[in-house]
Amino acid sequence: MNFDAPKGFRAAGTTAGLKVSGRPDLALIVSEVPCAAAAMFTRNRFPGAPVVVSRAHLAKAGRRMRAVVVNSGQANACTGPPGDEVARGMCEAAARIVGCRAEEVIVSSTGVIGRAPDLAKIESALPGLAANASPGGWASAAQGIMTTDTVPKLASREIRLGNDTVRILGIAKGSGMIHPSMATMLAFIATDARVNVPILRKAVRAAVERSFHCVTVDGDTSTSDMVVVLANGAAQARPMKVGTPEFDQFQSALTEVCAELARSVARDGEGATRLVTIHVTGARTEADGRSAAMALARSNLVKCALFGRDPNWGRLACAVGNSSAAYNPEEVVIRIGETRVFDQGRPATFDESVVHRYLDENQEIEIGVDLKAGDATASVWTCDLTYDYVKINAEYRT
Amino acid sequence: MNFDAPKGFRAAGTTAGLKVSGRPDLALIVSEVPCAAAAMFTRNRFPGAPVVVSRAHLAKAGRRMRAVVVNSGQANACTGPPGDEVARGMCEAAARIVGCRAEEVIVSSTGVIGRAPDLAKIESALPGLAANASPGGWASAAQGIMTTDTVPKLASREIRLGNDTVRILGIAKGSGMIHPSMATMLAFIATDARVNVPILRKAVRAAVERSFHCVTVDGDTSTSDMVVVLANGAAQARPMKVGTPEFDQFQSALTEVCAELARSVARDGEGATRLVTIHVTGARTEADGRSAAMALARSNLVKCALFGRDPNWGRLACAVGNSSAAYNPEEVVIRIGETRVFDQGRPATFDESVVHRYLDENQEIEIGVDLKAGDATASVWTCDLTYDYVKINAEYRT
Repeated sequence: MNFDAPKGFRAAGTTAGLKVSGRPDLALIVSEVPCAAAAMFTRNRFPGAPVVVSRAHLAKAGRRMRAVVVNSGQANACTGPPGDEVARGMCEAAARIVGCRAEEVIVSSTGVIGRAPDLAKIESALPGLAANASPGGWASAAQGIMTTDTVPKLASREIRLGNDTVRILGIAKGSGMIHPSMATMLAFIATDARVNVPILRKAVRAAVERSFHCVTVDGDTSTSDMVVVLANGAAQARPMKVGTPEFDQFQSALTEVCAELARSVARDGEGATRLVTIHVTGARTEADGRSAAMALARSNLVKCALFGRDPNWGRLACAVGNSSAAYNPEEVVIRIGETRVFDQGRPATFDESVVHRYLDENQEIEIGVDLKAGDATASVWTCDLTYDYVKINAEYRT
Repeated sequence: MNFDAPKGFRAAGTTAGLKVSGRPDLALIVSEVPCAAAAMFTRNRFPGAPVVVSRAHLAKAGRRMRAVVVNSGQANACTGPPGDEVARGMCEAAARIVGCRAEEVIVSSTGVIGRAPDLAKIESALPGLAANASPGGWASAAQGIMTTDTVPKLASREIRLGNDTVRILGIAKGSGMIHPSMATMLAFIATDARVNVPILRKAVRAAVERSFHCVTVDGDTSTSDMVVVLANGAAQARPMKVGTPEFDQFQSALTEVCAELARSVARDGEGATRLVTIHVTGARTEADGRSAAMALARSNLVKCALFGRDPNWGRLACAVGNSSAAYNPEEVVIRIGETRVFDQGRPATFDESVVHRYLDENQEIEIGVDLKAGDATASVWTCDLTYDYVKINAEYRT
């Protein structure tokens, strides 16, 4: 992969033997210097032990985080006090290798709920992993956090802020149990911008709102969702200030990195054959637009029709009709690709074979909804619902 | 089928040629005398023309309804003014045959959204259908309203109210696009109880709240949902009063009929192999219990696991964790059948093979959740998510 890594970070992934499959299952991100950190976590009421531990560490040491340690294979959620021990143990082991305090480490786990990873295996693998970590090791780290993902997910931007060149790079994982509420399954983003914690938090909230909060695969919010952004300041002499052109550029680039990762999660949704972008225009408010777009994105019937390459505008209209958005049903326009399929509350005259071909020949599908109720817009990303989604999730204990 | 038909009603179904498959597609219910009627309709913002027309008729003539005419094959939703004409035309044609006014007829359509049925075919079929209608013709009527249903759905109760024997009989259809908000796809219930419109409305609201509002197949609320209850008074000399033991008995029996129909809709969910009852106890309020139960019932991951006969309690806990119900996560208990699989926020020790066998050998599965937060309870019904659900809904234009 071709990308510009932010200065002052090292990353790597490895196989610690946590997965039966023998695939990579451990990742480490280290910053040479303490980082400002901001994170968002799942709103699920059964957060995994790593979520609880990381939240506490950020509260204590949010201005000087040094490392992130992540395993895949076991989610370490619903594992009780023994799970808490493992999460804390992972931080302590990483801290020993990195040379920092345990509370300066963020820990994350993804995989089967109710199982904790084998701490001894992680402790054995960490020294080698840390030794291999390099500024260009992000693709390897991205592989270490995969579960049912079929491809590693990485996005980066380089921006010029005044005299400084600043880089933002993120990795993510996520394929099923995707309906982020606070964050997607897991995303870790590093930047060498110099930005303090309150400003970084503001930027992360805004970026997540228009990226990870706009993606759904199956409507299930996981117990492990976590987005972490680390900023080590290596590329800038002076700290960023809100309200400056620099901050606006940083905000845009951070949002772009998050959105690219979020789209890659939807594209790689469990069993998916299509990335579906739902773009709502003419909404009274952005929240209204999001509500209408999510009503479509969450509809199993719509998603099965897309798998069948069926221009079934009736299901699209029905799904819009179930949203709480404000609009006059007799004005709504729905498009599949460029083709207007629904107009002013009733079917438009169109060539079904053309739309069928559009759905059949494109891996990325666009559905447009114009609510004709205002000027706000919203986009969300999802995927189709396929036999393979059922297969992946029906097999005895994934 | 063995059932007691309410006095003074006739019903029948027939094949009018509206479906390409040549299956029954038209049903008629006639009361000899004017009926008190109460109905609940879809909350979808694109209600079908029959919903709009029937709502208006009930507002005008709710105390003297005479007939219900229903077609399957075309939903007559999103069909604009031509669809309105067809819905009104169906009422006029039925009124001519029955000998009443068009506004004394309720009309309903179910099938493909965006298509209206062929009015001429309905007009030709109605005289023969009315001639065949009989007090025992309900099973035939139940067949006339089926779409992807695999079995006709009928439920009845006979209750003794003082010196009178009163019967309540209902038919329903529904298999996909099932997440009723006001009512299920279609249900028509007749009773020979003597009950006025305000009291009937009260009874219907209460019955629907604990029956059709407790079932979900795929989370999609349809454009055609409608529950209609007709009471012709044929079995009672004196009208029922609220607050009497008779009303309470009537309410119970009506709720039972609705619940039996609702369960039969879930059991016959598109592609379903299992009827799943989710029973929440220890909720702070009934609404809380419903929220927790629906969070499970709507989870694709839970429903795929049940199809795989996988005692995947982690997904059950995750789904409960996404509900808005009030509870302490460290006290929650989850059971599959009789087996406690999750206890006080962590996995219980249990024999997975026993639970796997329970899921494999029973067509009706029970999942219990004890929130330990109060005394309220709630039950909802759903089904598993299977390859066949995807197949049914992915095939080019169902």
